[in-house]
Amino acid sequence: MFSDELATKAANNLTALRIRKPLIHNITNFVVMNFTANALLAFGASPVMAHAPEEVEEMVAFAGALVLNIGTLTRTWVESMLKAGRKANELGIPVVLDPVGAGATTFRTGTAMRLAESVSIHVIRGNASEVLSLARKDSQTKTKGVDAVHGVDEAESAAVDLAQKLGTTLAITGPVDLVTDGKSVLRVFNGHERMGSVTGTGCVATALIGAFLAVDGNSLEATATALAAYGLAGEEAAGQSKGPGTFHPALLDALFNLDAEKLKEKIRIES
Amino acid sequence: MFSDELATKAANNLTALRIRKPLIHNITNFVVMNFTANALLAFGASPVMAHAPEEVEEMVAFAGALVLNIGTLTRTWVESMLKAGRKANELGIPVVLDPVGAGATTFRTGTAMRLAESVSIHVIRGNASEVLSLARKDSQTKTKGVDAVHGVDEAESAAVDLAQKLGTTLAITGPVDLVTDGKSVLRVFNGHERMGSVTGTGCVATALIGAFLAVDGNSLEATATALAAYGLAGEEAAGQSKGPGTFHPALLDALFNLDAEKLKEKIRIES
Amino acid sequence: MFSDELATKAANNLTALRIRKPLIHNITNFVVMNFTANALLAFGASPVMAHAPEEVEEMVAFAGALVLNIGTLTRTWVESMLKAGRKANELGIPVVLDPVGAGATTFRTGTAMRLAESVSIHVIRGNASEVLSLARKDSQTKTKGVDAVHGVDEAESAAVDLAQKLGTTLAITGPVDLVTDGKSVLRVFNGHERMGSVTGTGCVATALIGAFLAVDGNSLEATATALAAYGLAGEEAAGQSKGPGTFHPALLDALFNLDAEKLKEKIRIES
Repeated sequence: MFSDELATKAANNLTALRIRKPLIHNITNFVVMNFTANALLAFGASPVMAHAPEEVEEMVAFAGALVLNIGTLTRTWVESMLKAGRKANELGIPVVLDPVGAGATTFRTGTAMRLAESVSIHVIRGNASEVLSLARKDSQTKTKGVDAVHGVDEAESAAVDLAQKLGTTLAITGPVDLVTDGKSVLRVFNGHERMGSVTGTGCVATALIGAFLAVDGNSLEATATALAAYGLAGEEAAGQSKGPGTFHPALLDALFNLDAEKLKEKIRIES
Repeated sequence: MFSDELATKAANNLTALRIRKPLIHNITNFVVMNFTANALLAFGASPVMAHAPEEVEEMVAFAGALVLNIGTLTRTWVESMLKAGRKANELGIPVVLDPVGAGATTFRTGTAMRLAESVSIHVIRGNASEVLSLARKDSQTKTKGVDAVHGVDEAESAAVDLAQKLGTTLAITGPVDLVTDGKSVLRVFNGHERMGSVTGTGCVATALIGAFLAVDGNSLEATATALAAYGLAGEEAAGQSKGPGTFHPALLDALFNLDAEKLKEKIRIES
Repeated sequence: MFSDELATKAANNLTALRIRKPLIHNITNFVVMNFTANALLAFGASPVMAHAPEEVEEMVAFAGALVLNIGTLTRTWVESMLKAGRKANELGIPVVLDPVGAGATTFRTGTAMRLAESVSIHVIRGNASEVLSLARKDSQTKTKGVDAVHGVDEAESAAVDLAQKLGTTLAITGPVDLVTDGKSVLRVFNGHERMGSVTGTGCVATALIGAFLAVDGNSLEATATALAAYGLAGEEAAGQSKGPGTFHPALLDALFNLDAEKLKEKIRIES
């Protein structure tokens, strides 16, 4: 049922990540910057946060991947995202987008679409509501703030269509994660519900996808294996915690303590 | 001595919060954004942080309450606060203000007063020095940075006067919290001194007041019950921690693990 | 081998810090604001974060030290740093600079040099790559993001020269920390490798140096003793943690639980 091949791929990606320690350039929101940097470090990458228009192009040139996240966006940050994104495209560096809160306000939906249309994005990761809002563009899919009000299954066909239209890989995270490049659909069963009770776990998922994209040229597999490894860390952390407060440090510990053997055994991706 | 009625009210507010999960829109400072979002989630609300002038009005329209916090303010953020605050007033959505560091600089005192005068604020929460600085407006009450240098009792009569003048509920937090709407005065005895050794515990108090305001139309009682529930979580967390570092996750766990029964039993509010 | 005198100095500095609780004014990066504030509180100082040009001069006037950190800089923040720095100089308040990521981009290296040349800086703390980039100014010393790619020893002679040229104290942190005022060189052996697996531990080191500078007029000794006390906390936290996630709260607990006796016994500074 679960793919052995993809479990092996996950293990190999983790090994490669820890050997190469690629720089992951994040232009992300204020709420999750610390958590994201620590998660990337624990996973094995080298995070940097830089958003000044004066330096984003120079910074991204060293990066293995660029992570764009609109969680606390303003107009000037969007300009930096566009600048960094275009430079990344020029240099063949993969770009991941997290359309946090798309659907909640016109500014967010519009910015996410503008980024997706102006920059060649390798992977977009969001919850079901965010992805539906990008697919439909109309305002029938109002998101409540940054939390999903739609299920993953409801969003599947919209995701496949949108992936084809944008030529990107789409990941919708939820109880089961769905990853599609418009042709194949992978489902990731690793994860734990407690991940939903800590702010920024979705944003961290996006950043970890960036880390695997830096070592794996196959966007669909890089995305699914990153989500599965992260989900596995979540499962382990849940057993070590008494609530969302202690879950947070336990999750970072679990990411740090992942190893290739564990991934080979416990990754659950369905193709 | 302690009000049974208010303990029951606290329990009911928590139950309502967890059923309705209102969106709490925060325009707050960089230091506490993550802590605030996680505390609101653990309490049972749905937090969102959004400060772009392009979206604050649209975002606040979905909110159960708006939380304004001037902890790391700049001129453009103040404009967003005013915009969001006026929209909230228009829509009848309660607004809470945290005048972090008022009294420490002219910019902070002036901004806090400007917000209080331009927007109809339901609740202002600060430490004694911050509230005194708003009451007196002169610079005799210099605050040292963001920490209180005055006691709660010293600020009581000033708080009652200010509450009347601004037509707002005022909460002064300290070893015993004081809440007044200019007529009644409530005192909250729940809490633990370790809360003072973690940055942002005051800001979180303000946000949790916002959460209860979203489900309780009585500002005085919403404020006192939120502070009491939070204080109770602090008491429980203190027993689970060896210092301010482990207190932080323990406090989030304790907020998450609060329940109506516990509140009914352990809330200590004096009217 | 290790200096008893400096161990006693460390103990005295901690005692003085906890009695006087000086305000430490930070203009620092978004990633580490929360961690920095909590570390300063746990150490015994009173942190404030304020970056608005309208208030930095007024705020710094109350401070025992000013900490400048360019980790997520933009042009307007640099102006506030210059304004605050000049005011601090005028008032005789010590200034510490953390040139995060200097060498990684022209904007960062240029800003760090501009600050060092426009403001009289008492202490600069960075990793070896960052300090080398300031010493050489050419772009031969490319830093990868914000992580060091050079060793401390490699940077020693450059550090001594640069300290003389700028008339400042330089601290290069790594497995063994090196502190020099251009004349003497001190080496700090306290610390633990796990400190490198949490984001912002370097930035926190810089802030804690600021705390000791507020109570110790000797920049060389204030710097070395702060780094040693912090390193000792790191050693203790390592034993209490299972990974970088639980190390973070353990480190704050350890800072909080430091006392003068422990410092006298366990500080390891070589002169």
